[in-house]
Amino acid sequence: MYILCSDLEGVFVPEIWINVAKATGIDELKLTTRDISDYDVLMKKRLAIMAEHNLKLPDIQAVIKKMEPLDGAREFLKWIRENYQIIIVSDTFIEFAAPLMEKLDWPTLFCNSLEVAPDGTVNGYMLRQTDGKRKTTQALQSLNFTVVAFGDSYNDITMLEQADAAFLFRPPANVAEEYPAIAWTETYNGLKQLIQTATAR
Amino acid sequence: MYILCSDLEGVFVPEIWINVAKATGIDELKLTTRDISDYDVLMKKRLAIMAEHNLKLPDIQAVIKKMEPLDGAREFLKWIRENYQIIIVSDTFIEFAAPLMEKLDWPTLFCNSLEVAPDGTVNGYMLRQTDGKRKTTQALQSLNFTVVAFGDSYNDITMLEQADAAFLFRPPANVAEEYPAIAWTETYNGLKQLIQTATAR
Repeated sequence: MYILCSDLEGVFVPEIWINVAKATGIDELKLTTRDISDYDVLMKKRLAIMAEHNLKLPDIQAVIKKMEPLDGAREFLKWIRENYQIIIVSDTFIEFAAPLMEKLDWPTLFCNSLEVAPDGTVNGYMLRQTDGKRKTTQALQSLNFTVVAFGDSYNDITMLEQADAAFLFRPPANVAEEYPAIAWTETYNGLKQLIQTATAR
Repeated sequence: MYILCSDLEGVFVPEIWINVAKATGIDELKLTTRDISDYDVLMKKRLAIMAEHNLKLPDIQAVIKKMEPLDGAREFLKWIRENYQIIIVSDTFIEFAAPLMEKLDWPTLFCNSLEVAPDGTVNGYMLRQTDGKRKTTQALQSLNFTVVAFGDSYNDITMLEQADAAFLFRPPANVAEEYPAIAWTETYNGLKQLIQTATAR
């Protein structure tokens, strides 16, 4: 039996931090793992920037509530859920993702969580586990699922390499070049065809 | 981070085979694991009865499409999905469950599948794995989730015993008596309170 495993940001919704940076005008929040490769260093930097600008969780959530899923994402995800099961696996935090998950009709999301003080100050974050995307794929395989995975960038690669079939969606050029064995597409229709081919019975 | 794991039939939707038996007037289809404890023997008996009455998959699906989730199930599941992640784990078959999952807005379902001939004859079934409910709970725990599980009967017990917190929903009297350590409730509000208490942060 097949199950789909996918990334969230860049696949179904826009990059959350980049949009928060734009909306708040704080350019430093645009930093990603491409700029600071150590995720823990990056997140601590982001939290320090938030503290410096007195940004609390509700401020960030207000920005996220104004975001919309990518064009066509709702319809594509609806098609998936009518035909398969899907688990979305993301490095984001449930406190950030929830308003977007509502707009996607609450698909199942495996992600992380924030440590938030009663006044809304974000004091830290909790990673549920390291390399969660690969481990989720393995756990589903241990349940005798055949996993079809897709994501857009470096942090998805261990999931894509672990999966039984895998695709890149709108990857940066360097990612597509570095992993030529992984098929990629720029459109949901392309992804739909790749999924149908991989799961043809 | 918490995740919920639940049964499907008896918790969110009525018992499928019992309703098929009622709608078709074929009393023998009411047999359950309470009557024939070996699931494989039971399923082969059900398939033989279907063949004998020339019932094909579309006939069964037509009956299931007329079924509705249990009263209050949609609202309860909506509340869950707004506050937690949930995986529904069932011994049923995706070909039977799909019309009901649509009425529940497509929550994630881990279940089994049927072997269906082009003319709709059900030739057999594929169990994804034995003791799938317990193994799903373990797999989620391996991903560092704290699992809160609920179900209604014997086939849920290994899941409930494996989970970090567990409840019975509308259990038959003998099941509630046999497992006095597992709290039980007759209502979704009761289940909501048990879940909230188990996940109080």
